Amino acid sequence: MDPTSFDTHPSRYKHWRLTVSGDIGTLVMAVNDDHPHRPGYELKLNSYDLAVDIELADAIQRLRFEHPDVKCLVITADLDRVFCSGANIYMLGQSSHSFKVNFCKFTNETRLYLEDASANSGLGSLCACKGTTAGGGYELALACDEIMLVDDGSSAVSFPETPLLAVLPGTGGLTRLVDKRKVRRDRADVFCTTAEGIKGKRAKDWGFVDHLVSRSKWDETVTARSRAIAERQQVARGPAFALAALEPKVTPERVAYRYVELTLDVAERTGALVVRAPDAVEDPDKLAAAGTEPWSLRAFRELDDALLRLRFDYPDIGIVTVRTVGSQEIVRAIDEALASSASGFAREVRLLQRRVLKRYDNTARSFYAVADAPDSCFAGVLLELALGADRFYMLIDGDEKIGVQTSVANSGFMTTGSGLPRLDARFYAEPGRTQRVLARGAEGLIPSEEAEQLGIATIAADDIDFADELRIAIEERASLSPDALTGMEASLRCVGPETLETKIFGRLSAWQNWIFTRANSTGQHGALTLYGQPERPQFQWKRT
Amino acid sequence: MDPTSFDTHPSRYKHWRLTVSGDIGTLVMAVNDDHPHRPGYELKLNSYDLAVDIELADAIQRLRFEHPDVKCLVITADLDRVFCSGANIYMLGQSSHSFKVNFCKFTNETRLYLEDASANSGLGSLCACKGTTAGGGYELALACDEIMLVDDGSSAVSFPETPLLAVLPGTGGLTRLVDKRKVRRDRADVFCTTAEGIKGKRAKDWGFVDHLVSRSKWDETVTARSRAIAERQQVARGPAFALAALEPKVTPERVAYRYVELTLDVAERTGALVVRAPDAVEDPDKLAAAGTEPWSLRAFRELDDALLRLRFDYPDIGIVTVRTVGSQEIVRAIDEALASSASGFAREVRLLQRRVLKRYDNTARSFYAVADAPDSCFAGVLLELALGADRFYMLIDGDEKIGVQTSVANSGFMTTGSGLPRLDARFYAEPGRTQRVLARGAEGLIPSEEAEQLGIATIAADDIDFADELRIAIEERASLSPDALTGMEASLRCVGPETLETKIFGRLSAWQNWIFTRANSTGQHGALTLYGQPERPQFQWKRT
Repeated sequence: MDPTSFDTHPSRYKHWRLTVSGDIGTLVMAVNDDHPHRPGYELKLNSYDLAVDIELADAIQRLRFEHPDVKCLVITADLDRVFCSGANIYMLGQSSHSFKVNFCKFTNETRLYLEDASANSGLGSLCACKGTTAGGGYELALACDEIMLVDDGSSAVSFPETPLLAVLPGTGGLTRLVDKRKVRRDRADVFCTTAEGIKGKRAKDWGFVDHLVSRSKWDETVTARSRAIAERQQVARGPAFALAALEPKVTPERVAYRYVELTLDVAERTGALVVRAPDAVEDPDKLAAAGTEPWSLRAFRELDDALLRLRFDYPDIGIVTVRTVGSQEIVRAIDEALASSASGFAREVRLLQRRVLKRYDNTARSFYAVADAPDSCFAGVLLELALGADRFYMLIDGDEKIGVQTSVANSGFMTTGSGLPRLDARFYAEPGRTQRVLARGAEGLIPSEEAEQLGIATIAADDIDFADELRIAIEERASLSPDALTGMEASLRCVGPETLETKIFGRLSAWQNWIFTRANSTGQHGALTLYGQPERPQFQWKRT
Repeated sequence: MDPTSFDTHPSRYKHWRLTVSGDIGTLVMAVNDDHPHRPGYELKLNSYDLAVDIELADAIQRLRFEHPDVKCLVITADLDRVFCSGANIYMLGQSSHSFKVNFCKFTNETRLYLEDASANSGLGSLCACKGTTAGGGYELALACDEIMLVDDGSSAVSFPETPLLAVLPGTGGLTRLVDKRKVRRDRADVFCTTAEGIKGKRAKDWGFVDHLVSRSKWDETVTARSRAIAERQQVARGPAFALAALEPKVTPERVAYRYVELTLDVAERTGALVVRAPDAVEDPDKLAAAGTEPWSLRAFRELDDALLRLRFDYPDIGIVTVRTVGSQEIVRAIDEALASSASGFAREVRLLQRRVLKRYDNTARSFYAVADAPDSCFAGVLLELALGADRFYMLIDGDEKIGVQTSVANSGFMTTGSGLPRLDARFYAEPGRTQRVLARGAEGLIPSEEAEQLGIATIAADDIDFADELRIAIEERASLSPDALTGMEASLRCVGPETLETKIFGRLSAWQNWIFTRANSTGQHGALTLYGQPERPQFQWKRT
């Protein structure tokens, strides 16, 4: 199978048109039937697949970095009677379980990033649904700040997944209905079991949409609402920075970028991720002004891309070691420069780092961070990779050159989905310890043995034991059931309060994973399998 | 298959011994190999099945009502080297998916009730583990206030589920580790993948147990810790009240109690639950003092039993209508008497009602509450059944005799697993509305049409439309995939904040449901299937 590429550019979009006019950006969904992600189905009626969603993710990212003037994004469609009919059902029916789950996860992340742009980057959003808005189409609308629905006597919003396909609206829809829009749960129940959905006045009265607008008033209302959304933005982005393609070198055993490298041993089912620090301290703002991509942006975009490729293209890799290489002082200095900068660009870079680290948290692979060389570089923002890993192994070296350092990046900004910074999540039992660790980290390198005592390292061992202990731990991990590990990691990684985000990945996705494996949806006579065919699904009726 | 009975009594226990001495109760786990819930496996090494857990649930309930002097419950075992080896694996291997899921759910509920007894009823708990404490055995320990482990060089606590069985510790264990005991997630990761578990000093240092005690100091330490736990209790229960057996009349189509009746139409896959109010106002304290069980206790114990039988014995029933019959004034007066009583008994009754209503919330069947007769009785604590249902249908009658009433039972005490009262969960979008509804409800009957306007009814219709609308809604519901409905309801019912409780049922259980369906655990070559046999499991390695 060809590797999946997440590199794209508006000039190459096949399914969306991105235009910018003043402080309003417009993304027109114009899905091209003939360009699905994989051959075998047509993307009719603005239905989407991974190809469509890769472009959407790219567009949102570019608006944040390349179009800082845009304060409101209008998402709409070029069809007259359909906004979006959701994820392509034939694509889902043909896909493997692991593809379906990873497709849903990526789509969920993209929608959370749209909400993040509104919450943190001064980029509000309006979903202008001038026609049928079904399934994942309505889930995309739910991720926007405001939803406009045309009042034409026929256009409805709907979640037909349960009645038609025997699956859930699995891209955050159920959670966003009751927890974000706070639709009454009994009304949500009626809605989610009514294939044709809800239109007109009831859609507005019940809280499914914000604005119900006639065709004659449509354009002027889109303008008015997008202006209102733009005008209430408080955060300024910029200056603009153009994102170059990542263009990794990809072989079956290796995905290599400028700063990030992922190597894969398919026979052993293990991977190795290495992130390198830059050679010199950089001022991200100055570099960006000169048109050069700073390490802090480039390395995290590369890491993001590597994680996505790991998910989609290497499903047999169960455990990945994570190492870092370079100068801890350089990383700490860059963290400091980013945090102290007043520019919108610097803030965008930090927000991107935060999102990429969340992508790491939500990747269903075991990660063991490893510090076993004097040039190991778990400092500052790279220390987050060790704190986010399932375990952190540190070698105790005689001259104490191996260690970790903290920076401003560890002191609150890099939150997980739960809203807790990773140090706070780690020391959930002992909230005061975060401050002690940060204070100690400010004094310089924390060598391995001390890092273990402070609670940073899971296991620290000297060179008599280290290599064997790590090797055995990796072999053992690679021998365990991938399903049980996924469920276990999903439970242990989510310490503390739950949020819309953790509910989507932890609760909704877990139920959907289960439902995707049930005969009632994906069996020979299941509803998803038989969609579009004359045969009626046959259900096994046992409730659990 | 014989119906499942949840009626038992300490005099008939086969697997536990309950003794009381002063303010200390002791439950000794002494599982009888030869009395499994179903034939086909032996309950060796204090492993447990539904039969064992039914007795545990009974014991905890009886301690609350019948032994109000007990302030600390010590849970221990009669074997010398084993406390409890967890859920019986052969039983799990032989069970259907729906049985496994419902067994785990019931066990989870029992453990939450143990925690509830400590939090609200002045009944603390100590788990005295004088030997191997594995899997569900350690999960039971985690539900206690304090865990003592013997320090004998060999006894460990462990979660061998993932390494040995390719499933999760699914009875709350993962959640309680990181969210209740706040064990560091990387240490929890090591623990959950180490089949032999963790013993001795590391078990204490890493937070898995509270006390590490030698065999020579064991008995005196049990005494000292149980005394300390007893002495810190602030809540007084009592007076004592003996719980009589429920002894429903059971036929394949009907489970009938004094106040509750569940009828089943297996062909249509529908059920009908009816709860009757008593004929006269009662003073629960006076009745109980005279040895008569008040309605407020009896009816909810019956409802509890009916819900459990529905789950275990009627898996094909997908949708259940819920009706109430009787005098709303009587129910409201009883609610008032219970809430204004200063007795520990009255508080226990309310706590039981709250637990039963949570059991209802966590039952994976669709519930439609229906008010369609003048003697419909959705008032006060019975109104919670309508608020907890997926939908509430009300008939608009010409003379406005059909309606609902509120009482003190709706104003905060009857919280869901999320900690929100059901009215607050319903009006999550509009917090002020709860007070408006309560104020209106205090003035008297809220007829159907007004109830719909206030947001209590989902659908209110007059007699031209009502019967057809309800009939079609039930038929449609019964035609949908039970798996998708379970996932949908689990997502929509949990509005608002997450708690240990909602995390266990929503997140952990959902992952376990998925894992139970995967070939790696329950397939022909799965680890759960092959447990105890010489053949090694064969895994499919794809991660999701």
